Amino acid sequence: MKNHFPFPAVGQSRAIVERVTPEIDGGRFATKAIINETITVEADILIDGHDNLAARLLYKHESDKNWSEVVMSSMGNDRWVGRFTAAKQGFYTYTVEAWVDHIASWQHEVDLKVRDGQHLKVEMMQGELFLNGMAKLAKGDDKKAIQEAAKAMGNESRYNEAIQIAMSDQMHEWLTKYPERQSAFRYQELKLYVDREKAGFSAWYSMFPRSAAREVGKHGTFKDVEALLPRIAEMGFDVLYLPPIHPIGKTHRKGKNNTVNAEEGDAGVPYGIGSEEGGHTAIHSELGNLADFKHLVEECKKYDMEIAMDLAIQCSPDHPWVKEHPDWFKILPDGTIKYAENPPKKYQDIYPVNFETEDWKNLWQELKSVIMTWAEWGVRIIRVDNPHTKSFCFWEWVIAEVKKDYPDMIFLAEAFTKPKVMQQLAKLGYTQSYTYYVWRTSKAELIEYMTELTKGEMRHFFRPNFWPNTHDIDPYMLQTGHEPLFLIRYFMAATLVGNYGIFGPTYEYMYHAPYPGKEEYAFSEKYEIKWWNWEHRNKLTYVISQVNRIRKENTAFHSTNNIDFCEIANEQLLAYLKTASNGNRILCITSLDGYNRQGGFVKIPLWKIGKNEWESYRVHDLISGATYIWKGDTNYVELDPNILPFHLFRIEDI
Amino acid sequence: MKNHFPFPAVGQSRAIVERVTPEIDGGRFATKAIINETITVEADILIDGHDNLAARLLYKHESDKNWSEVVMSSMGNDRWVGRFTAAKQGFYTYTVEAWVDHIASWQHEVDLKVRDGQHLKVEMMQGELFLNGMAKLAKGDDKKAIQEAAKAMGNESRYNEAIQIAMSDQMHEWLTKYPERQSAFRYQELKLYVDREKAGFSAWYSMFPRSAAREVGKHGTFKDVEALLPRIAEMGFDVLYLPPIHPIGKTHRKGKNNTVNAEEGDAGVPYGIGSEEGGHTAIHSELGNLADFKHLVEECKKYDMEIAMDLAIQCSPDHPWVKEHPDWFKILPDGTIKYAENPPKKYQDIYPVNFETEDWKNLWQELKSVIMTWAEWGVRIIRVDNPHTKSFCFWEWVIAEVKKDYPDMIFLAEAFTKPKVMQQLAKLGYTQSYTYYVWRTSKAELIEYMTELTKGEMRHFFRPNFWPNTHDIDPYMLQTGHEPLFLIRYFMAATLVGNYGIFGPTYEYMYHAPYPGKEEYAFSEKYEIKWWNWEHRNKLTYVISQVNRIRKENTAFHSTNNIDFCEIANEQLLAYLKTASNGNRILCITSLDGYNRQGGFVKIPLWKIGKNEWESYRVHDLISGATYIWKGDTNYVELDPNILPFHLFRIEDI
Repeated sequence: MKNHFPFPAVGQSRAIVERVTPEIDGGRFATKAIINETITVEADILIDGHDNLAARLLYKHESDKNWSEVVMSSMGNDRWVGRFTAAKQGFYTYTVEAWVDHIASWQHEVDLKVRDGQHLKVEMMQGELFLNGMAKLAKGDDKKAIQEAAKAMGNESRYNEAIQIAMSDQMHEWLTKYPERQSAFRYQELKLYVDREKAGFSAWYSMFPRSAAREVGKHGTFKDVEALLPRIAEMGFDVLYLPPIHPIGKTHRKGKNNTVNAEEGDAGVPYGIGSEEGGHTAIHSELGNLADFKHLVEECKKYDMEIAMDLAIQCSPDHPWVKEHPDWFKILPDGTIKYAENPPKKYQDIYPVNFETEDWKNLWQELKSVIMTWAEWGVRIIRVDNPHTKSFCFWEWVIAEVKKDYPDMIFLAEAFTKPKVMQQLAKLGYTQSYTYYVWRTSKAELIEYMTELTKGEMRHFFRPNFWPNTHDIDPYMLQTGHEPLFLIRYFMAATLVGNYGIFGPTYEYMYHAPYPGKEEYAFSEKYEIKWWNWEHRNKLTYVISQVNRIRKENTAFHSTNNIDFCEIANEQLLAYLKTASNGNRILCITSLDGYNRQGGFVKIPLWKIGKNEWESYRVHDLISGATYIWKGDTNYVELDPNILPFHLFRIEDI
Repeated sequence: MKNHFPFPAVGQSRAIVERVTPEIDGGRFATKAIINETITVEADILIDGHDNLAARLLYKHESDKNWSEVVMSSMGNDRWVGRFTAAKQGFYTYTVEAWVDHIASWQHEVDLKVRDGQHLKVEMMQGELFLNGMAKLAKGDDKKAIQEAAKAMGNESRYNEAIQIAMSDQMHEWLTKYPERQSAFRYQELKLYVDREKAGFSAWYSMFPRSAAREVGKHGTFKDVEALLPRIAEMGFDVLYLPPIHPIGKTHRKGKNNTVNAEEGDAGVPYGIGSEEGGHTAIHSELGNLADFKHLVEECKKYDMEIAMDLAIQCSPDHPWVKEHPDWFKILPDGTIKYAENPPKKYQDIYPVNFETEDWKNLWQELKSVIMTWAEWGVRIIRVDNPHTKSFCFWEWVIAEVKKDYPDMIFLAEAFTKPKVMQQLAKLGYTQSYTYYVWRTSKAELIEYMTELTKGEMRHFFRPNFWPNTHDIDPYMLQTGHEPLFLIRYFMAATLVGNYGIFGPTYEYMYHAPYPGKEEYAFSEKYEIKWWNWEHRNKLTYVISQVNRIRKENTAFHSTNNIDFCEIANEQLLAYLKTASNGNRILCITSLDGYNRQGGFVKIPLWKIGKNEWESYRVHDLISGATYIWKGDTNYVELDPNILPFHLFRIEDI
């Protein structure tokens, strides 16, 4: 009989492994984790019939030769689980292997038959065969003990002893340690990328270095920024993010408030990158030179701070690439280069790079070399401007390339766009991503969004970075300039997720004047230099310092997905619990109302904090120092926004 | 600069296609459909930036050389949809292709700029290039028209005309018909298997042919079954399923009520297959010979009925395979063959086949040849006994093999086991599957289970076949013998899903005596011959005839997934709407209470039946003939189980 289809390779295989989690798009993309994180892998594992099955989670780091193994255990309903610790940075591979466990099935059968009073002759003969097989895999004392057990099984006069062995925990231990692994089914290999700690826990301070001067009318320099480091460190930030620091183009330069033509003396937009002085690997001379920049990078380390650079892949008409590689841009039928447009608006100061160029390989190499150059300068964090307007496949390639040489490199995607595009960028390798946080203001919106980020599939690949403002966004809510609202929006950004940032000093000094009708700042620093009174301290700077200190001291804040919202029957109060495996338990309660007192009963999921209904525990407000003794799951809280619109409680045993 | 990772093949590609549905387990398994069904394919499609994109659904039947194409359209949120009709049986392949549509982007830009009053010189030059490219793809009149349009674009003196063309629907039609398709992204190829109509719509009657004799004390024969065909056809069934018809083993034969040792004259269990007379391709001589069986198969066709055979892969100790291929069974260390056990219970009359045998290829071939032999006898439906205790990979191979030669073949999986195992069998190729229906009795259970089957992923691969009883299951609910309950359980099986069956005449004659304490029949026909008064007619036989006739006449019953439950504020009333694309609309309302009158207001989703709040429509009870005029979405119904515990309404326009 002729067959239409070939036989499978292992027709005797009886196990099936499927629906492994985490798995992104059928294994197309890597799952993300932070170093030393526990990775929980689950799978549906099926075999035909009623035999026992055995399953192992296999994993190896890219630097490992051999697989490490973990015994998986059943969770019921054919779901199995195993866990391992991601102890090294870089790529891991993991998969699941399963097989019919004939020896365990046999042990189970022996047990049932012995209870039924049957005499088990052939079963003991079978046991002898199994044990002899095991002995071949075992070594040392185990080998001897197993061989001895095999002898007992094979000797009718030692029947009672043999039965004892067959039913023993020792036997079960052996069969787990030396499995037959006959016709095992192995699932496809999945990828995991492990980042350094800062990828999951960071506090960003964003500022324009040209506004760093103390003296009004002067262009700020890297030296001026260095002088501000103690102030920024005092507030507790650990990433200092600078918009582009490269030469700014002169052709079609924009003026103040994004006006079309700059006037004499206008500083220009740092995003109009490139002039005769150079492009993405040159330094805007008014900020200093390369040595100054490198000095700033080094100086930051003293404050446990890192510089984040801004990668904006676009050029001013004066950028060297325009002359050297006009084919990297879109050339129109009349021979001119296509400038950026959002019809009918024209942005003649910007040439977008054309990722569809025939010369794409050289373009990619050049862009990679920009990042590699920055890396050589000591930079390990890059915020990418509008990555969603550049080719997806480029990002996947360049991020992998750079991280191979610089595994510490962190890429933050500044994509404020459609949800699936933002997710795609994260899947392609972005370490962190901007989010919709700035537009999520009601309780329902915040809970829904946080649930999507931390409980759904996104938790495996999308690391949110929450910003209550940016240099592009002056949110409507803050345009009032009302202090409690600045406190609330800051507090939630800093405590809901592991990574967050503010655009300062605009934020802490509550600058809020909008460009009329828009969610943008009037007299934005994007288009002009500003001078600040850097000595000024206020409630915001105090609260920021406190919250950042508390974040560092409490490991519950070092992760994002460890959040659970608590019931509280007041639409203006939001309560959430963050818990860490070391026992650190934080309860945040914030008012969303910046104007009125709000109170309500908060219900704590006691099993999450390891308490019973009748147990008392202390809630310790780490900002005010106040402590309260609570009992049971339901307790009253009240917040006055004019005092402080939130509680930051640590839950402590008494 | 040396790269770690190779460049992708098409670095200029800017489109991404992902999350295509239907897709089972990343494309590992085929989706199922019925011939002439409309297949709806959706995908997430992304490009970077703000250009337009174009997407096509590609599909081809295994007999087609080239892809057919359907233009996909946007559903919002980056989700796209396309549809095609599965017009042939067998395998289809389908996938999704997408690319940046530069011409559509250009058209959109032109439109915005014209509205802004700009003069578009370079844009018209660009248009000329686009149109010249299109002209190369076009033929005949289109080609001429496009060339002419290109000329207009290239001629400054025809500017107004060129702008008209650029913004025209004709231009849009051309760019859709002759797409650039530059650096297109094509998703992986997915599979679809298309079955004949009976795979999705069938009414099964199951009976033991040995109980078909009219004369008490006689062994029924295929001739006796033939004599019953008019009766079964009158009731409206179209599949006649017979438990195994092969020689029955004598060694350790079971007696009445599954007693261990048969007495002289006991007929044995048809599932104890094989004797010196032969095995799975032989006929039990007391039923007739092969010619008689083939005659029965032919005779069924006259009544639009088909025979379903029962494939039980297991052997009596007397089966020829035991002598010829002892290595196809599990041989114990003492040289004996392992019989079936469920410790401490022993089933010495049954040898399970060992799918782990070294000789698995020959075993698979032999099992395939059994089915192929039955196919040569004219059989096109096979009910498989306990498929979940046989190797998964065998089923995948053998079903594909057989269907390649006999695409009409239908396989029904009789697996009453864990949910994921039942799903796996369906994924591997089973056409239909037994379900938990017999144990889903409350309103909440029924709605939950139906929702799982028809609204979740299972709807793409798992075709439920509902049985209110089987020869193995005498459900507790029916052990009362209460007629309304038999009517209710029958009615729901026949109207909730497309495929259903009953074990008769036990069901229609309401035989219900249980084996004490079990959900099994006392004096089960599995272990002995029964004689029935085949002339008897009752309320059940009448209702069954009516319901099967109505099922055939109303296309809304020919599918399973076209169901929507209706609100009705009574836990004892279940209401559901079934709608077909030809306008057929059926409303079923059944009481779950076999004892008391139940009434309530049913709320019809009016948009599903194409009515407005103020429109009247007729509900026509197709069983009783009664009609009612209803208006709006909420109307009162009342059911008296002693009259009839359900309404089967057709919704008709007035």
